Amino acid sequence: MRVTDDRPFVITSRNHAAIQQIRSLQHRSEREHSGLFFTEGLRFVAQAVEQRWGIESVLLSRPLLTHAFGRRLLREVHRRRLRVVEVTPEVFHSIASVDDPQGIGAVVRQQWEPMSTARPDEGLCWVCLGTVQSPGNLGTIVRTCEAVGASGLILLGSGADPFDPSAVRSSMGALFSLRFARSTPAELAAWKRRHACALIGTSAAATEDYHRAAYPEPMALFMGWERQGLSAEEQALCDRLVRIPMVGRSDSLNVAVATGVMLYEIYNQRRTA
Amino acid sequence: MRVTDDRPFVITSRNHAAIQQIRSLQHRSEREHSGLFFTEGLRFVAQAVEQRWGIESVLLSRPLLTHAFGRRLLREVHRRRLRVVEVTPEVFHSIASVDDPQGIGAVVRQQWEPMSTARPDEGLCWVCLGTVQSPGNLGTIVRTCEAVGASGLILLGSGADPFDPSAVRSSMGALFSLRFARSTPAELAAWKRRHACALIGTSAAATEDYHRAAYPEPMALFMGWERQGLSAEEQALCDRLVRIPMVGRSDSLNVAVATGVMLYEIYNQRRTA
Repeated sequence: MRVTDDRPFVITSRNHAAIQQIRSLQHRSEREHSGLFFTEGLRFVAQAVEQRWGIESVLLSRPLLTHAFGRRLLREVHRRRLRVVEVTPEVFHSIASVDDPQGIGAVVRQQWEPMSTARPDEGLCWVCLGTVQSPGNLGTIVRTCEAVGASGLILLGSGADPFDPSAVRSSMGALFSLRFARSTPAELAAWKRRHACALIGTSAAATEDYHRAAYPEPMALFMGWERQGLSAEEQALCDRLVRIPMVGRSDSLNVAVATGVMLYEIYNQRRTA
Repeated sequence: MRVTDDRPFVITSRNHAAIQQIRSLQHRSEREHSGLFFTEGLRFVAQAVEQRWGIESVLLSRPLLTHAFGRRLLREVHRRRLRVVEVTPEVFHSIASVDDPQGIGAVVRQQWEPMSTARPDEGLCWVCLGTVQSPGNLGTIVRTCEAVGASGLILLGSGADPFDPSAVRSSMGALFSLRFARSTPAELAAWKRRHACALIGTSAAATEDYHRAAYPEPMALFMGWERQGLSAEEQALCDRLVRIPMVGRSDSLNVAVATGVMLYEIYNQRRTA
């Protein structure tokens, strides 16, 4: 195990308190309690740094940080005087979710925007999500949102956590470019009224075809969860409901695919208008 | 453990040879060796039966089969004289991938269509996939293909297996309505020439915008794999390359989302033509 001489303290035990704390962030309860989450990999840490998210500490294993890009990132980390926790490769492996970790990770402070400051007129639109269960789907939706310039996500209820390790991974780092808000149905109703923002939902039972619909500005897109779609209460919040037609025997699309199809329709209409 | 009297043989051991054989189908090597796969759940078995896939045996645990739909399905299974293997709930749980299994599963024969009989003029189009790594993504693509009436999937190389348990599950049973072919690049080139079928691929470096492109009939859509997209060799097979524009910092979409966006564009153009 290589230990650099000019760095006196390198954590060598996977049971060290700092390591156990990072490991505990795999659990939602601990993420909610601390308001932190852990992300690993060059792309992710670089985005967190660039987008100026609050970084509690950078986890580093120098022998694993072999990419030139990683060394540049580390210089930036030092320049910003971020706290660096050095560990042995073995300790890093004990936390990493991949077999060949890149030797850098970060404990990052979650950013939640209050509905009171969320502005609906920036970006393509906000995306409201009902109870999305799968963090992988949620992360994929985050990735698509960023690709079309959506403002961010408004999460209703107690669905998946965007700072879940699987969601962060599926987002490919896009989460650091988006805003996140939590809302109750009542808050969402008040918000859209206050901003004269149209809330457009999808439903298999809607009569309006999503591709023939016009999408006003500002608007928010409301997607239901995996199998059930929007609940009756959620549909009642919407100003309009549109339907993505299907010709097969299926009654629904994967929620991340459906969100992608909707967002690209809105994006295409805006850019060709 | 309830054992019905008029059914003399109910497997009570999770180590029974028939159960071990089903369990072995979780491994790709065993699926390829046997040409079989296992699917569980009412929706899945019902689709396999309805779409007349070859069913080697139906795995049944009567105490778990509580839905009325399940009892109707079982009558259909008996009417077709399919072989039924009865097991205790405990044995069924030992095979099931969900916590509350529905008490019915099936060992199904894989169906592969030779490229020589695959016709490009049926359905919306075929979808060719490079090396898609994630079975979940592959199953989600299958689900979208079925929703827009695509013919089926042509799989190049040794990517994910559509009969992988995760792929089957993500497809929500849609795989039983699609056709599957394996092809080498050379076979694919010969097939598209023979049928005068346009092969349209996606690439972040393409100049043609996917939304401004026209999609001829017949055509096949060629999607690359998760991060890298189409390889240079795969791009060379294409008649045209189109680009899905992105405004954020992302350089790619999730492959299942990108396939959904492409397929709905083609579907929209066809149905509004």
